[in-house]
Amino acid sequence: MTRTTMSMLGTYPKSGSLDQAKLAETVDAIIACAEACTACADACLGEDKVAELTTCIRKDLDCGDICDTTARVLTRQTGYDATISRSLLEACVAACKACGDECSRHADMHEHCRICAEACRACEKACRDLLATII
Amino acid sequence: MTRTTMSMLGTYPKSGSLDQAKLAETVDAIIACAEACTACADACLGEDKVAELTTCIRKDLDCGDICDTTARVLTRQTGYDATISRSLLEACVAACKACGDECSRHADMHEHCRICAEACRACEKACRDLLATII
Amino acid sequence: MTRTTMSMLGTYPKSGSLDQAKLAETVDAIIACAEACTACADACLGEDKVAELTTCIRKDLDCGDICDTTARVLTRQTGYDATISRSLLEACVAACKACGDECSRHADMHEHCRICAEACRACEKACRDLLATII
Amino acid sequence: MTRTTMSMLGTYPKSGSLDQAKLAETVDAIIACAEACTACADACLGEDKVAELTTCIRKDLDCGDICDTTARVLTRQTGYDATISRSLLEACVAACKACGDECSRHADMHEHCRICAEACRACEKACRDLLATII
Repeated sequence: MTRTTMSMLGTYPKSGSLDQAKLAETVDAIIACAEACTACADACLGEDKVAELTTCIRKDLDCGDICDTTARVLTRQTGYDATISRSLLEACVAACKACGDECSRHADMHEHCRICAEACRACEKACRDLLATII
Repeated sequence: MTRTTMSMLGTYPKSGSLDQAKLAETVDAIIACAEACTACADACLGEDKVAELTTCIRKDLDCGDICDTTARVLTRQTGYDATISRSLLEACVAACKACGDECSRHADMHEHCRICAEACRACEKACRDLLATII
Repeated sequence: MTRTTMSMLGTYPKSGSLDQAKLAETVDAIIACAEACTACADACLGEDKVAELTTCIRKDLDCGDICDTTARVLTRQTGYDATISRSLLEACVAACKACGDECSRHADMHEHCRICAEACRACEKACRDLLATII
Repeated sequence: MTRTTMSMLGTYPKSGSLDQAKLAETVDAIIACAEACTACADACLGEDKVAELTTCIRKDLDCGDICDTTARVLTRQTGYDATISRSLLEACVAACKACGDECSRHADMHEHCRICAEACRACEKACRDLLATII
């Protein structure tokens, strides 16, 4: 993926407002997290003890939706608006933190929760790092 | 719409964490704003002077994506997480404010920008009102 | 909603390819169905017997995603492409049919499934009617 | 990405209905295409001659939305429904074909259109290949 995202961001005809390599890395971490969340929600639905995983499913759904939207907004460089990027990154950090925490609780029992928690942690970190560069 | 949203929220089997009528009203304002933004971006693309509207299109796309996600997250009552709702509502307020401001600049020239600005203002207000009830 | 959707579609600066009133009506039925599906998936997650509703939740999630995308694509009038509109409407009909059938099975037990099934039927019908006008 | 998608699909607690390696490959091609389309629409908006690219932007937006939804639906393995998967894959093929064709027309002028056309072709092919395995 990073090749596609990085190449595409690099073709933007004007100069972007954020460091392109860091931006591409963040977008890819967000996209990977979104996919992990969609798959984890579905794998939870497939578990016999789904009743114990409803909070996890809900966090997965929220985190997947928020990540999808954050990836789109960050990918856009026309009419860049630091206020929108910052507030959405903060929402993405909150969603990844909550989903990562919830998935961690089931990581010993369910491999999908373990991998999803890792994707959430990586995404949270990438978003925090990018946030630190937005003044 | 309000009838569908209100009825559906009312069928939730446990007690919700937010005032249901206010929640339904907010969700509907967000959904109407998302639709207005998608239509406004497209109408801008159809204008002869599209080159003067690229920032407006970008704000419309961001606001549409953020509103769609916010409506989904607010609609979910299972495993309610005030931190996620609050941070996403703040991002939604930021997007609606920016899009409403940008559309207002073109409201005299383009009816789609005038109506979209109104939808953004209404959505921004509804989100702020709901935010005030989340402690 | 229909007022917002209808007004916005009517501001498109060129002449659209489909009947505007029918288009607005369809878009609104799709948006209402998307909201009902998101709420029904969440209400199913909140039921004690969630384990009996996993297929319903999955259909709700698919139908909600497909409806959201179909509403966006239909709302766009620039560079209209009958092939894309038609194939996406067909996917939307399939999703609404499957979700409406599944929700109907639980309609006696769960009011959210009953209302959601109704929204799916209405959306399926609106999509079929619009499809019939796309040659 | 393929590592994340493949690992996550592999953790599904029941046996899936499609070949997992092919499914993961397809989902990744779709996700890469969605990202390319979002970036291409934005890069087109950043071009001085944006007025010549409005059809391209519209196809990018449609293709991005349809790909995002198709990736989600294919990722879900609970309550698998061949009819929905098939009809959505057909819509995805139509969108990728149309977007790839349109981007190809601008590939000599704009590197973003060239890369996006490639991503659309790869996604179209992956979707057709997966479709051939769904009876």
